[in-house]
Amino acid sequence: MNDNTKARLIAIDWGTSNLRASLLDGEGAVIETRSAPGGIMAVQEGRFAQQLRAVAGDWMQTLDAPLVASGMIGSRQGWKEAAYVPCPASIGQVAAQLTQVEVAGDGEAGPRTLHIVPGLRAQHEGGRHDVMRGEETQIWGADLAPGACALLPGTHSKWAWVGEGGSVKRFQTFMTGELYGLLTKHGILGRLMKFGESHPQHFVAGVKEGLAGHALATHVIFAARTAGLMGTVPPEGLPDYLSGLLIGIEIAGAFAHRQPMPGSSEITLIGDDDLCDRYAAALEVAGLGARRAREDATTRGLWLVAQAARLLT
Amino acid sequence: MNDNTKARLIAIDWGTSNLRASLLDGEGAVIETRSAPGGIMAVQEGRFAQQLRAVAGDWMQTLDAPLVASGMIGSRQGWKEAAYVPCPASIGQVAAQLTQVEVAGDGEAGPRTLHIVPGLRAQHEGGRHDVMRGEETQIWGADLAPGACALLPGTHSKWAWVGEGGSVKRFQTFMTGELYGLLTKHGILGRLMKFGESHPQHFVAGVKEGLAGHALATHVIFAARTAGLMGTVPPEGLPDYLSGLLIGIEIAGAFAHRQPMPGSSEITLIGDDDLCDRYAAALEVAGLGARRAREDATTRGLWLVAQAARLLT
Repeated sequence: MNDNTKARLIAIDWGTSNLRASLLDGEGAVIETRSAPGGIMAVQEGRFAQQLRAVAGDWMQTLDAPLVASGMIGSRQGWKEAAYVPCPASIGQVAAQLTQVEVAGDGEAGPRTLHIVPGLRAQHEGGRHDVMRGEETQIWGADLAPGACALLPGTHSKWAWVGEGGSVKRFQTFMTGELYGLLTKHGILGRLMKFGESHPQHFVAGVKEGLAGHALATHVIFAARTAGLMGTVPPEGLPDYLSGLLIGIEIAGAFAHRQPMPGSSEITLIGDDDLCDRYAAALEVAGLGARRAREDATTRGLWLVAQAARLLT
Repeated sequence: MNDNTKARLIAIDWGTSNLRASLLDGEGAVIETRSAPGGIMAVQEGRFAQQLRAVAGDWMQTLDAPLVASGMIGSRQGWKEAAYVPCPASIGQVAAQLTQVEVAGDGEAGPRTLHIVPGLRAQHEGGRHDVMRGEETQIWGADLAPGACALLPGTHSKWAWVGEGGSVKRFQTFMTGELYGLLTKHGILGRLMKFGESHPQHFVAGVKEGLAGHALATHVIFAARTAGLMGTVPPEGLPDYLSGLLIGIEIAGAFAHRQPMPGSSEITLIGDDDLCDRYAAALEVAGLGARRAREDATTRGLWLVAQAARLLT
């Protein structure tokens, strides 16, 4: 039985596919975590309150710990749109701009307030915008030093550079995961592929090709078809070869305009274990070092935001 | 009524989606053209002969003109796999390697032979392969001088450089059209878009962004989402903006490793009118000139191959 009397925060990581709620104590340590496939795409007709109570209703009824959420829940498709704070952004600036949403009462449970963490926006040379939601909280939770580079792989992979006081100085999104999904599921490249096994040697070959050819990415990706047609890579090696190509293109792209990067010789990977292992292997091919972030980066980030917002009692 | 007595060749352009058959005279001029949505993806259970007879059966029965086809009909998914001739490849080399397939007789119609034009393959630095099928015939039909650059936009856009004697010296594929289709139909970028109208100014903005950011293409494409989120480009301008981004990335990529290109200041566009207009506009933004190929490039290419193969009687 968990000692819920120590609970000081209900920390919610609410993304596109999943909802994960954690009970944290006064030091930010996790007492209990629950998750459900209740991401914003799974919530029908704006029934966010019901979804939240389905996962954490008992906590909300019996504990007066505040509720803080980060992720796509604050997007236009989420519960209520939270701001995008411009970079460079400190945790203090973000904590001062939380968006409140009232969680209606339900039976004996009274109404509660949910605090949503804003996302970040950046502007690149030439005026191009970039955005993140949720990753900023993980970056803060990873406790990175100024000059560090955080890499958060995923559907939309994020590279972020840390500035003074742990602020997020600038960041950049790569559509690596989405492109892999589209090309393998709906595109012509998937037709020659056999999925299932892992083939590290073909992954490494793809990474090298992507690193070398990133300047002509939409050409280089076609190599995943010709390598299949010509028999250079067997059907069961093609998924890893394409994955390597796309990750190689991403890594070379991230450094394309600012080589060499100060402090980037060691990159901190934040996220899913398998994906981080894949990126660590690719970074090694690129001659870059990588370390893993502390495991509780997400809950710790939510705790730090709550602390900075003086929500902890 | 067409004067079919002058017919000397049945020229067939047989692709993934469509089949187009033309009757050509002794000079390669078109007497009549017929087309059908009978591309190789539409042919069930290998019924290629039935498909061909449905379009050109009367010609095959009443005329003894030879049948020559180019395109995906010679791919592994087509009727019979034709070779890939390595670059540099001349029309003579290709004409010496036609693949024959017997077209079974049908009722009163006797059997016939179909000659399939091989595709081309190229190998890039580092060993990466490239392939084309059908475009080689169009390039020959366009009558280009040594040093010329041919650009054939499409699902898999091809850039080809012409060598001595009109041979195809080398070429490069870009997945521009396929990526546009995947990203707009199945990806997150399409969700903010409104399709229909043409917006040249957003297309031009996309081209500029793509040209400047081609070295980090999988990042730059994400600008089609953030420009929508931030309201920089309205929903109805986003399809053209993404199209511009991808074409800009392609153009800059094509010149990335070999700038400046000899003879590339004027590029010959071969293909669909709307798509060629779009590429001509993008090339102009890039400071490159473009001209259109003669309209009968495909049939003329088939006629030249047949001539080189001594099939014309």
